[in-house]
Amino acid sequence: MEKEKLYGGVEAGGTKFVCCVASGPEHILEEIRFPTTTPEETLRRTVQFFEPYVTAGKIKTVGVGCFGPLDLDPRSPTYGFITATPKPHWSNADVRGTLQRSLNVNVAFDMDVNAAAVGESIWGASRGCDRSLYITIGTGVGGGYLIDGRPLVGLLNLEMGHLRLPHNRELDPFEGNCPFHGDCFEGLASGPAIEKRLRATGATVPESHPFWDIEADYVASALMNYILTLSPKKIILGGGVMQRDFLFRKVRNRVLQLLNGYVSSKSLLEHIDEYIVPPGLGNQSGSMGSIALAMQLEESMNDPRL
Amino acid sequence: MEKEKLYGGVEAGGTKFVCCVASGPEHILEEIRFPTTTPEETLRRTVQFFEPYVTAGKIKTVGVGCFGPLDLDPRSPTYGFITATPKPHWSNADVRGTLQRSLNVNVAFDMDVNAAAVGESIWGASRGCDRSLYITIGTGVGGGYLIDGRPLVGLLNLEMGHLRLPHNRELDPFEGNCPFHGDCFEGLASGPAIEKRLRATGATVPESHPFWDIEADYVASALMNYILTLSPKKIILGGGVMQRDFLFRKVRNRVLQLLNGYVSSKSLLEHIDEYIVPPGLGNQSGSMGSIALAMQLEESMNDPRL
Repeated sequence: MEKEKLYGGVEAGGTKFVCCVASGPEHILEEIRFPTTTPEETLRRTVQFFEPYVTAGKIKTVGVGCFGPLDLDPRSPTYGFITATPKPHWSNADVRGTLQRSLNVNVAFDMDVNAAAVGESIWGASRGCDRSLYITIGTGVGGGYLIDGRPLVGLLNLEMGHLRLPHNRELDPFEGNCPFHGDCFEGLASGPAIEKRLRATGATVPESHPFWDIEADYVASALMNYILTLSPKKIILGGGVMQRDFLFRKVRNRVLQLLNGYVSSKSLLEHIDEYIVPPGLGNQSGSMGSIALAMQLEESMNDPRL
Repeated sequence: MEKEKLYGGVEAGGTKFVCCVASGPEHILEEIRFPTTTPEETLRRTVQFFEPYVTAGKIKTVGVGCFGPLDLDPRSPTYGFITATPKPHWSNADVRGTLQRSLNVNVAFDMDVNAAAVGESIWGASRGCDRSLYITIGTGVGGGYLIDGRPLVGLLNLEMGHLRLPHNRELDPFEGNCPFHGDCFEGLASGPAIEKRLRATGATVPESHPFWDIEADYVASALMNYILTLSPKKIILGGGVMQRDFLFRKVRNRVLQLLNGYVSSKSLLEHIDEYIVPPGLGNQSGSMGSIALAMQLEESMNDPRL
């Protein structure tokens, strides 16, 4: 990868947008962030930010890691749209098309978690791993799984935040707050689920609170299922809830307990502190991931084999 | 693929071995089956079966779909061994090495579920799908996931039979019989788990028994997690338990209930009877899968790009 080549990146979140022009985390030319309001206003500000760079010929490709759910099927008439989201105004917003037409650039468009996973695999905690998993546990719960540096795509977008998990209602009578599945992983373990249950944000609940063992059990149960199904070589846990450092220790211990020696991988059993890790890019996973998406798109366009 | 080219195939099961020489399900030259006894005796019979074909130059490659757990890391000193199995005599059996040395052929070696998945993708129910999942629910529970026709390999073998799932102990007080995880998917839904719980084999329990709704819930919960994590384009359910046809209907209905409209794929929501299906090769998935493994190995050896 040429260090000096510049790309546009958009971390399109449900709360805020981060736009940047960069060649990687070591070389960020400019970055702005603004709140997510209506699609019209938010995308107009996005276009305005990139326009001078495009006009000057400095960037040809913009990567967008977007909150979902998204239509990612290139054959679909609504490819690049946000589909049915509970977020007001954003259902059926044509994010990719609007940026592509307004800026006349190539747009690499993917889920926010996929962008973060790609960014981490190039510059962050999963460098050198050909199979890696990025999970975010925050306002929502979601994940991106990379094979040879590319997000796994199948019949539909991976929605691994909605796994069905054991829920001990005696220990944790909370019903779960997922509008679709009640007590799925997201319904039990997301930031809003914690807040609804404890009437306090996760950031303010003391480490000694017994709930954290329950939270760690949900996260570890989900990781156990991902490990048995996807067998990643590295698991990165990001998102607001995982800002509480002590959770990593609890989750790692619980994963080992749950696996109960069933798998024979040393890197998992003996070095779990290097297997389940925080993002190497910190809170830049999203924006740098978007830059990485743009990089990958340009590379594939220049690769005669593809 | 050349129709006339012959390969050896071994379906190496914990109860019986099936050995065949074939070019596919339409052209099986010879097939034998015998009970799995000690590794020495069982592998000797296997070698004896193939020897005349090898000596005559008719087969150069034998595919083996083997019961596990297996060491599938080519860099490992115990590559191709069965690792720690509860099956007497078979822990540390060098299945791949024994066949390779005795017959002096190429040996394609993989898990039984991966072989079945590959066989189904070439001649069976998942033909034409670039992402497919084969799950067996029988004595054990396991699965193989194919990407572009090849089994997904990661840090360790996929052991997706051991997912953690919701277990309503009021409805189903059975503790589960997995020696590692108690009430994981296999511990709750395998043939032996059904037998221990109901004191009758699944084959004799009438369709009207209320347990089948519980069984369907476990299978559907696991499928939901696979769908959200792997997004296969086809799911094949094999194994002894799934011989009861009515289970397919129950499982499909429960999957739709659990997803609750969350995914927007028409092929899943409107054509679930074509999405969750029995094996196209019937009880030949395993033996033909082993032939397919051999075919794939020869192809990759002849492919200058690989």
